[in-house]
Amino acid sequence: MNVGGQHFRTIWLKADDARIVQLIDQRFLPHRFVVEGIATVEQMATAIRDMHVRGAGLIGAAAGYGMYLAARGGADLMQAAAQLKATRPTAVNLAWAIDRQLHAIAAADLAKDKVATALATAKQIADEDAEYCRLIGRHGLELIHRIAREKHGKQINVLTHCNAGWLAFVDHGSATSPIYAAHDEGLPVHVWVDETRPRNQGSKLTAWELGEHGVPHTVIADNTGGHLMQRGDVDLVIVGTDRTTYTGDVANKIGTYLKALAAKDNNVPFYVALPSSSFDWTMRDGLAEIPIEQRAAEEVRHADGWANGERVEVRLTPENSAAANYGFDVTPRRLVTGLITERGICEANEKSILALFPEHASSAPTRKATLLSPFSSREMGAGDKSVASPG
Amino acid sequence: MNVGGQHFRTIWLKADDARIVQLIDQRFLPHRFVVEGIATVEQMATAIRDMHVRGAGLIGAAAGYGMYLAARGGADLMQAAAQLKATRPTAVNLAWAIDRQLHAIAAADLAKDKVATALATAKQIADEDAEYCRLIGRHGLELIHRIAREKHGKQINVLTHCNAGWLAFVDHGSATSPIYAAHDEGLPVHVWVDETRPRNQGSKLTAWELGEHGVPHTVIADNTGGHLMQRGDVDLVIVGTDRTTYTGDVANKIGTYLKALAAKDNNVPFYVALPSSSFDWTMRDGLAEIPIEQRAAEEVRHADGWANGERVEVRLTPENSAAANYGFDVTPRRLVTGLITERGICEANEKSILALFPEHASSAPTRKATLLSPFSSREMGAGDKSVASPG
Repeated sequence: MNVGGQHFRTIWLKADDARIVQLIDQRFLPHRFVVEGIATVEQMATAIRDMHVRGAGLIGAAAGYGMYLAARGGADLMQAAAQLKATRPTAVNLAWAIDRQLHAIAAADLAKDKVATALATAKQIADEDAEYCRLIGRHGLELIHRIAREKHGKQINVLTHCNAGWLAFVDHGSATSPIYAAHDEGLPVHVWVDETRPRNQGSKLTAWELGEHGVPHTVIADNTGGHLMQRGDVDLVIVGTDRTTYTGDVANKIGTYLKALAAKDNNVPFYVALPSSSFDWTMRDGLAEIPIEQRAAEEVRHADGWANGERVEVRLTPENSAAANYGFDVTPRRLVTGLITERGICEANEKSILALFPEHASSAPTRKATLLSPFSSREMGAGDKSVASPG
Repeated sequence: MNVGGQHFRTIWLKADDARIVQLIDQRFLPHRFVVEGIATVEQMATAIRDMHVRGAGLIGAAAGYGMYLAARGGADLMQAAAQLKATRPTAVNLAWAIDRQLHAIAAADLAKDKVATALATAKQIADEDAEYCRLIGRHGLELIHRIAREKHGKQINVLTHCNAGWLAFVDHGSATSPIYAAHDEGLPVHVWVDETRPRNQGSKLTAWELGEHGVPHTVIADNTGGHLMQRGDVDLVIVGTDRTTYTGDVANKIGTYLKALAAKDNNVPFYVALPSSSFDWTMRDGLAEIPIEQRAAEEVRHADGWANGERVEVRLTPENSAAANYGFDVTPRRLVTGLITERGICEANEKSILALFPEHASSAPTRKATLLSPFSSREMGAGDKSVASPG
């Protein structure tokens, strides 16, 4: 998307120097726009581990380019893969991109071909990510068009939580992609940006990227969304997800569940935007099964921001107060109006999700459902698995 | 309650000098404990306006002492009253305390008696506030005892939002009073403290006062309460209120509504603690009628805290991003399990509230309910008003 009127992705090969991968160093946003040049796999590992780049799609793309730099530098590829995988052990896209590179490079014969293959694969991973996000935008745009028709030219208010924007991917973003598509078509879309404590990805990243692309937006405290919905000032909620079960339960940044409850209570449509890589095809019950990361208490005890031209961290709590920092929560599928994927929009339930992604029907572990089914397991053929009702 | 092992109120007459009123200057909490001496009504007006003191009960007590200082200093009492009333125009307790002083002082004959009367009235206002809060604690304690019996000695987890603590009153607080009572009885009570952005009254004031009194507590981002309730880690929610309609709708710090929704969704009891002065006996419909204050956007765009031994304000958002700052939201009565008042606990509905405060039955404007009632207005006597069903 645009930064100061110029199109950017979050990561790219330097135009005039194929030895360098460039990326936006997000640690300095929204206060400074810093582009970092990465020349080695070690530097890329640091950039991922220390969160110069973050977000599922972008981490995958960064790992892909990291493997390219390893191949180009003649590094031991297995060692490079291990080094990159160790940076953010829970990020599913990381291992997926690295393994894809290992397979692609292994298939090339000559050393020179291996480097070219690694570069082509890195670009492909990045391009696919951008394309999936673009498609999410096209499908989500239909929802916004529908609201626009009902509102007859009045401002369309979309609420989002955390940063599921282009900064978390290569371009477009997931939750933001329909918003950018609507804005670029000239629809009068305005975004309520949850600040998203404790790390403030909303006020720092989402507000910045919307502002740079010219999308009208207003930052709010995380406490505010319910009140806005009660007043009728929210037409649509779109959030991203870190992991969604194939039954439709949505793990996302802590606080998402509270907004989903408010949306339900006020009849506001609540959508989750995700590329299919964010589905977990093995989990039935998000609340029971998805592990929730606990992060450092210091993030809650402090806030960091900008004062007198530098980044400053201030303590908000008494010195001796304990703090707890759960990174994510799970929004049960009953609160989710629909899922916006690269293949289209589906309902947040097993049947609708597997109808859109039938290739995953056989991998879904429906045994529990089978046990609860009125049919015995012998009566239920493999073909029935995809439509077994959720438990 | 206790500060560093010593009992304090939020405001008091200096022990050895009746010319000075002392108060805790809350602007420096939780980082420094500052006691300020106030010698004139002008200084008291500044202390209220600039929020050295805040909270409904405490503002009333401060205004009472302000009128005493005015009487003692020979000031024009009507002018002093106007000066004090202008400090926080929306605080209902402020005008109430000032008018009470004007009546009391007017009834005294001699100038000397006027000063003595003003002091006695100021003390009475403060003592009554503390006593009402203490009684709220006794009644709320019964709820905690009930939970304690079910949990067989295991930790009892109470979640609270914002600061409805003793710092907002003269002593005990409203939402915190049952917690202090339980802690002082030796019950294993632990408090989840919502940080309460954007002003962080939770992480700054509630965490501080609980910590100083020795109550175990954990500060959490406002996003976290729903997840904790899903996990079964919250046994009880108690919040305060800025205004509650006589039909049971609760205006309180922004974000309260989201916690109430989560409590309902997880069968966690959700109580509101309030002295009867916080009831609005004229409003039927909280959502439609209670005006919601919009505060400065800068509070959302910034956070202030402590860095290198001083108070620092840091900017969290891009320079050009707009922000909105709604101070309160309204929790509809259907989400409220009960109200804890100085007279006991009642349900959040007109019938139950007016049964506890029957002297207000005739002031309640039940005309709308009458129109909806199956009886004609002629058939409905005055005595029926208190039990007219909510609209």
